[in-house]
Amino acid sequence: MSQKVNLEKKVLSENDLLAASIRQELEAKGIASLNMVSSPGSGKTSLLEKTLAELNNELRIGLIAGDVQTENDANRLIRAGGKIVRPLVTGGACHLDARMISRVLPEMNLDNLDLLIVENVGNLVCPSSFDLGEDMKVVLISTTEGDDKPLKYPAMFRRSSIMVINKIDLLGTSEFTVKRVKENALQINANLKVFEVSCRTGIGLDAWCDWVKQLVAEKQGVSA
Amino acid sequence: MSQKVNLEKKVLSENDLLAASIRQELEAKGIASLNMVSSPGSGKTSLLEKTLAELNNELRIGLIAGDVQTENDANRLIRAGGKIVRPLVTGGACHLDARMISRVLPEMNLDNLDLLIVENVGNLVCPSSFDLGEDMKVVLISTTEGDDKPLKYPAMFRRSSIMVINKIDLLGTSEFTVKRVKENALQINANLKVFEVSCRTGIGLDAWCDWVKQLVAEKQGVSA
Repeated sequence: MSQKVNLEKKVLSENDLLAASIRQELEAKGIASLNMVSSPGSGKTSLLEKTLAELNNELRIGLIAGDVQTENDANRLIRAGGKIVRPLVTGGACHLDARMISRVLPEMNLDNLDLLIVENVGNLVCPSSFDLGEDMKVVLISTTEGDDKPLKYPAMFRRSSIMVINKIDLLGTSEFTVKRVKENALQINANLKVFEVSCRTGIGLDAWCDWVKQLVAEKQGVSA
Repeated sequence: MSQKVNLEKKVLSENDLLAASIRQELEAKGIASLNMVSSPGSGKTSLLEKTLAELNNELRIGLIAGDVQTENDANRLIRAGGKIVRPLVTGGACHLDARMISRVLPEMNLDNLDLLIVENVGNLVCPSSFDLGEDMKVVLISTTEGDDKPLKYPAMFRRSSIMVINKIDLLGTSEFTVKRVKENALQINANLKVFEVSCRTGIGLDAWCDWVKQLVAEKQGVSA
């Protein structure tokens, strides 16, 4: 299997080079960028729908919606008001990589963007290994998934900067507690910033959207 | 990338050979076997806890609990009464493969087993590609995950024989409907047999356990 390992290293190193060049381009244009990762069904698309509803008039947001199959998520984001939305169907691959991103970016008119959000394939394992050139990864976990997930899938929580706990309205329907999931996640990555939201009831979305605005403002301050 | 594709084919073909030999061994000993797959948090371990509570006195059940990190699931299954439980920590890999199974099987005293259940890593993509030598894959989906998942992650639903819809008690807390998830899943795989359960309230578990018993009886009838 060492041949396979070497080849994986080579593929990752090619990915890292391409990601670095994407990062440089976004940086030069003052575009903030997020890579949203989670299990299937944690609510990545729902959070982006709500984010669009709140920020679409203030920020120019580009969205790349990754999925193994279907353009369902891209269509949901367009219905939610997304103006620059690109589906990215992997056709089987379990993660997005920098090459896929570099193929759709030229269609997105980066000169007119404040913020680029990539919604990765729903998978709590593989996307952690692939830098897409983003400023940071945002990992979602929903209260219906079990609060030990950061310990069981540590790489994703280690490589993310933000953890959004979604479906806060469903607390109490399982053993999941916010206290435990935070303890477990912070044990893996003490620097994680945490948001608690419910995309269904709207709890916590203001704080999330304020943080997104602040991220964009800082990026434009730096690049201005 | 064609070098990578060829290598993946080779790895898969080695896996298939090993899986065939595992299948042959289980068949010879009259052991029924299931490979449980789903997103993280759909309730694989919960379903197995409930299955043990119901069938532990009637059947000799061996369990292999796969995880990227931690032996949490194996420990839960032992607390639930599991007598022959082996943790299988991949240390990073996003799926179990036949080689990993073949390493733990010799510790499980197959002559004293009626049923072998493998709980795969929580991942709705990658484990679909790896035959472990099981009789069939059982895919779980929970009502909190979104009813379009079979369309978005079709390979897993195509390669499974059974779909267990879990968290039926949480219907109504989202747009998810049983009708739509069934339509979507059967569109991918018309032969899927479907169970609707709640591991929390116990709804539907009798039908699931009856089916498991029947599977074991048929296997032993065939091999007797």
